[in-house]
Amino acid sequence: MAIRTLVWGENVHDRESKIVQNIYPDGMHTAIADGLNEDDGLSASTAVLQDVEHGLTEQRLAETDVLIWWGHAAHGDVSDDIVDRVQQRVWEGMGLIVLHSAHFSKIFRRLMGTPCSLCWREAGERERLWVINPAHPIVQGIGPYFELPNAEMYGEPFAVPEPMETVLVSWFEGGEVFRSGLTYQRGAGKIFYFRPGHETYPIYHNEDVKRVLKNAVHWARSAAPAWTSVDDAPNRPVDQALEPLEEKGPRLHKDGEAGLR
Amino acid sequence: MAIRTLVWGENVHDRESKIVQNIYPDGMHTAIADGLNEDDGLSASTAVLQDVEHGLTEQRLAETDVLIWWGHAAHGDVSDDIVDRVQQRVWEGMGLIVLHSAHFSKIFRRLMGTPCSLCWREAGERERLWVINPAHPIVQGIGPYFELPNAEMYGEPFAVPEPMETVLVSWFEGGEVFRSGLTYQRGAGKIFYFRPGHETYPIYHNEDVKRVLKNAVHWARSAAPAWTSVDDAPNRPVDQALEPLEEKGPRLHKDGEAGLR
Amino acid sequence: MAIRTLVWGENVHDRESKIVQNIYPDGMHTAIADGLNEDDGLSASTAVLQDVEHGLTEQRLAETDVLIWWGHAAHGDVSDDIVDRVQQRVWEGMGLIVLHSAHFSKIFRRLMGTPCSLCWREAGERERLWVINPAHPIVQGIGPYFELPNAEMYGEPFAVPEPMETVLVSWFEGGEVFRSGLTYQRGAGKIFYFRPGHETYPIYHNEDVKRVLKNAVHWARSAAPAWTSVDDAPNRPVDQALEPLEEKGPRLHKDGEAGLR
Amino acid sequence: MAIRTLVWGENVHDRESKIVQNIYPDGMHTAIADGLNEDDGLSASTAVLQDVEHGLTEQRLAETDVLIWWGHAAHGDVSDDIVDRVQQRVWEGMGLIVLHSAHFSKIFRRLMGTPCSLCWREAGERERLWVINPAHPIVQGIGPYFELPNAEMYGEPFAVPEPMETVLVSWFEGGEVFRSGLTYQRGAGKIFYFRPGHETYPIYHNEDVKRVLKNAVHWARSAAPAWTSVDDAPNRPVDQALEPLEEKGPRLHKDGEAGLR
Repeated sequence: MAIRTLVWGENVHDRESKIVQNIYPDGMHTAIADGLNEDDGLSASTAVLQDVEHGLTEQRLAETDVLIWWGHAAHGDVSDDIVDRVQQRVWEGMGLIVLHSAHFSKIFRRLMGTPCSLCWREAGERERLWVINPAHPIVQGIGPYFELPNAEMYGEPFAVPEPMETVLVSWFEGGEVFRSGLTYQRGAGKIFYFRPGHETYPIYHNEDVKRVLKNAVHWARSAAPAWTSVDDAPNRPVDQALEPLEEKGPRLHKDGEAGLR
Repeated sequence: MAIRTLVWGENVHDRESKIVQNIYPDGMHTAIADGLNEDDGLSASTAVLQDVEHGLTEQRLAETDVLIWWGHAAHGDVSDDIVDRVQQRVWEGMGLIVLHSAHFSKIFRRLMGTPCSLCWREAGERERLWVINPAHPIVQGIGPYFELPNAEMYGEPFAVPEPMETVLVSWFEGGEVFRSGLTYQRGAGKIFYFRPGHETYPIYHNEDVKRVLKNAVHWARSAAPAWTSVDDAPNRPVDQALEPLEEKGPRLHKDGEAGLR
Repeated sequence: MAIRTLVWGENVHDRESKIVQNIYPDGMHTAIADGLNEDDGLSASTAVLQDVEHGLTEQRLAETDVLIWWGHAAHGDVSDDIVDRVQQRVWEGMGLIVLHSAHFSKIFRRLMGTPCSLCWREAGERERLWVINPAHPIVQGIGPYFELPNAEMYGEPFAVPEPMETVLVSWFEGGEVFRSGLTYQRGAGKIFYFRPGHETYPIYHNEDVKRVLKNAVHWARSAAPAWTSVDDAPNRPVDQALEPLEEKGPRLHKDGEAGLR
Repeated sequence: MAIRTLVWGENVHDRESKIVQNIYPDGMHTAIADGLNEDDGLSASTAVLQDVEHGLTEQRLAETDVLIWWGHAAHGDVSDDIVDRVQQRVWEGMGLIVLHSAHFSKIFRRLMGTPCSLCWREAGERERLWVINPAHPIVQGIGPYFELPNAEMYGEPFAVPEPMETVLVSWFEGGEVFRSGLTYQRGAGKIFYFRPGHETYPIYHNEDVKRVLKNAVHWARSAAPAWTSVDDAPNRPVDQALEPLEEKGPRLHKDGEAGLR
């Protein structure tokens, strides 16, 4: 079965900025989904901030294998309850791909546990993304590097935890560097942060960017059943211990009680 | 100067349970601080949930090098605003030591980005903590293992991110294992999770436990100045680029603008 | 195409010990390969120390996707040149699964860069292997733990680098713990160390062990083309620089020269 | 006591190249040691390839807390037996700082278990080293970046394992990036790879480079006693098990026997 991929877009600059509309007439989320749907192994649809429950209902998320997140101007408008829901699904095993300015999204900051801050410059400068690990599934079909002729600069320090893998590092014309492709795991969920994507340049029409995104969806998808008990804290009663065990010392809890929170 | 260490205690069972009072007449936080103060290089004081602002005012945190956190029954009573404040200070470089049932504290879950769940059993069983990395500063003065004659069992899977270092792994009489000493870094802050500490056993009077805690405070303390800008997203204006740069392409932002959140 | 899997066996105790022969009449390597061949997606064959070039010719390795290594009594008899060859292939992307006493094999010590030492006891005691990361592909189909009624004990400290992922941790009847399933990456090659396997117990007939091995082969197999240039150090001539570059300062090397070794 | 630091130099180009002699009249090793000795907490001496046993006798290494390694043209001339000795001391807890072209030294390749390859260009181009983790002890006293006006370029992919911490990433004038400051741990030994150092430019006279080296020595030094048993594989006899244990099943080994190698 094709990997059920949901592209979530904030859809603010997409509607309000003439520049962005010219590049992405149907919104960035639609362009990203169209690119993914070129791959027969993927089945991508979209949801936006303005939808009921931001388009991220319990059922929609339950039917999503990999979620792609793009946001920039309206991180604060995303409901905390919906972020809880998304986070729970990542913990259960839904893959998550976080794009560009979504470094400051609630969901990414929460999953990282760090500020996810950086410095930036909007000058349309040249960016060259170097492949650090040529064997990584996410960069298959990419050469030793790829270039974006016009990009917003993001510079280090990028305040994220040390990643599981550093996949891409960017060189910028103006003199900065940035770790542009990083992988993480949180609970059962695999996470990929991918830097490219400023909305005033046609980044998501770039063939290398599209290739990375397709690869990343395949990589992030978990074949394991959802780990729905990931946030439980079950008590193991003494009489069901795997080794013979006699109760000793005083107790605070009763048998079978839920863990205190 | 001695390392300014603050031991934060929830102070609920300490007051309400006769069993806990017998072991820790002045509360667990006090016993922990007393243990640390045996080391001339440390200067430990205490704060509790019931204090104004939980005893964690801006100024108090600014004057704290390493914070130790114990909580169990009242995680939900800790104010989100205070947790924000503690998290910011960890990002800036304050060390954090998270004890036992504080695996479910708001601050630890936030910094990990995972549920931090586990399974458990309260049977007073024997625990043996094995040293995985004998060269680690946190286990200096400890032999290949140490034992607690009575402990609450915590069992895997412990839903935390893969640690920077696995320092201790526990064996339990009833048949389980647990990664009992784990290190992390978030922003500039070093974090140590340390499993021992159930309140109905005299864990914090144990000499090996006291030794680990002293070592951990030394380890977690940062000598770097506080990284107060850790959550900033500064714009670098085009005309201040380190390499000659000419602006190209359309822009969304104005010079010197703060990053969108 | 089925994953081309090669099971390498030292084949010493298999021939010399009556006990081992009773359990593995055709040698341990054969039993392991038979187990793998139950999976239609795998095609496993065998090679042994006593074969010409230990059965690990250039061509054989070139046609191998994943290599499984079992050794115990004769690590020193493996030719350094053959180990060079295997290491090169791992760097290029061949997966490697290292079993039990092969912790002390030349190939594992070389890839880890550490002693890979541990402590041990041969008492036929009970081992319970706990799953640390239930979402990991290697433990799909396994419950929260599995047991081996008779096992040789391996105890910490296991002198290996901090792994990419801790997949399994063992509990032993005699009181020790051990990190029994660890993943690494070296160059393009994925590596899994898996503890079970003492030759005097029927470990490789155990269904859970067989399940883990099948999963591990699927996990370790790289879909990327072989990274054959992984050990090259190419010079990039000045006139082929990606950015305009004028030569400055004195030089030691000539254009196109190979890196000094 | 001052940290006993040994700067090892290959001392080949230092003697043979007029260019290098002009910059480092007493050899690069001497310049590096002189820089370190500006710090009262450090006591640095030197050894070279041409010394008896390369100046790395058992006793000399036993009295060394941190070893700095510079080599380029003569990696192959370093005796394997001496490399064994150095590796053993790193495992025991001696810190190791590997400089520039020593990425291809025997000791670094052995400790990493990877080729440690990269691409390069000698054009005297500008390098800017960005600090990734401003809180790291190794970059204290350094601003957000430092520059080398003339440097040999090293480009990714750098075939090393994913590091414990990425401390520095370089931007090069010609368009490449490189992870220029990386930390590792092998056994009890802390390792720092630091890229700067081409011998035809006065890199080790640069104040920022000198600052990083001083910091790195402090960071790499272990306060733990030497882990001299790091390569042992002790048997734990059945009758000394920590838990009551009855021998079951057949055995291969005798009590107290050394592990097979």
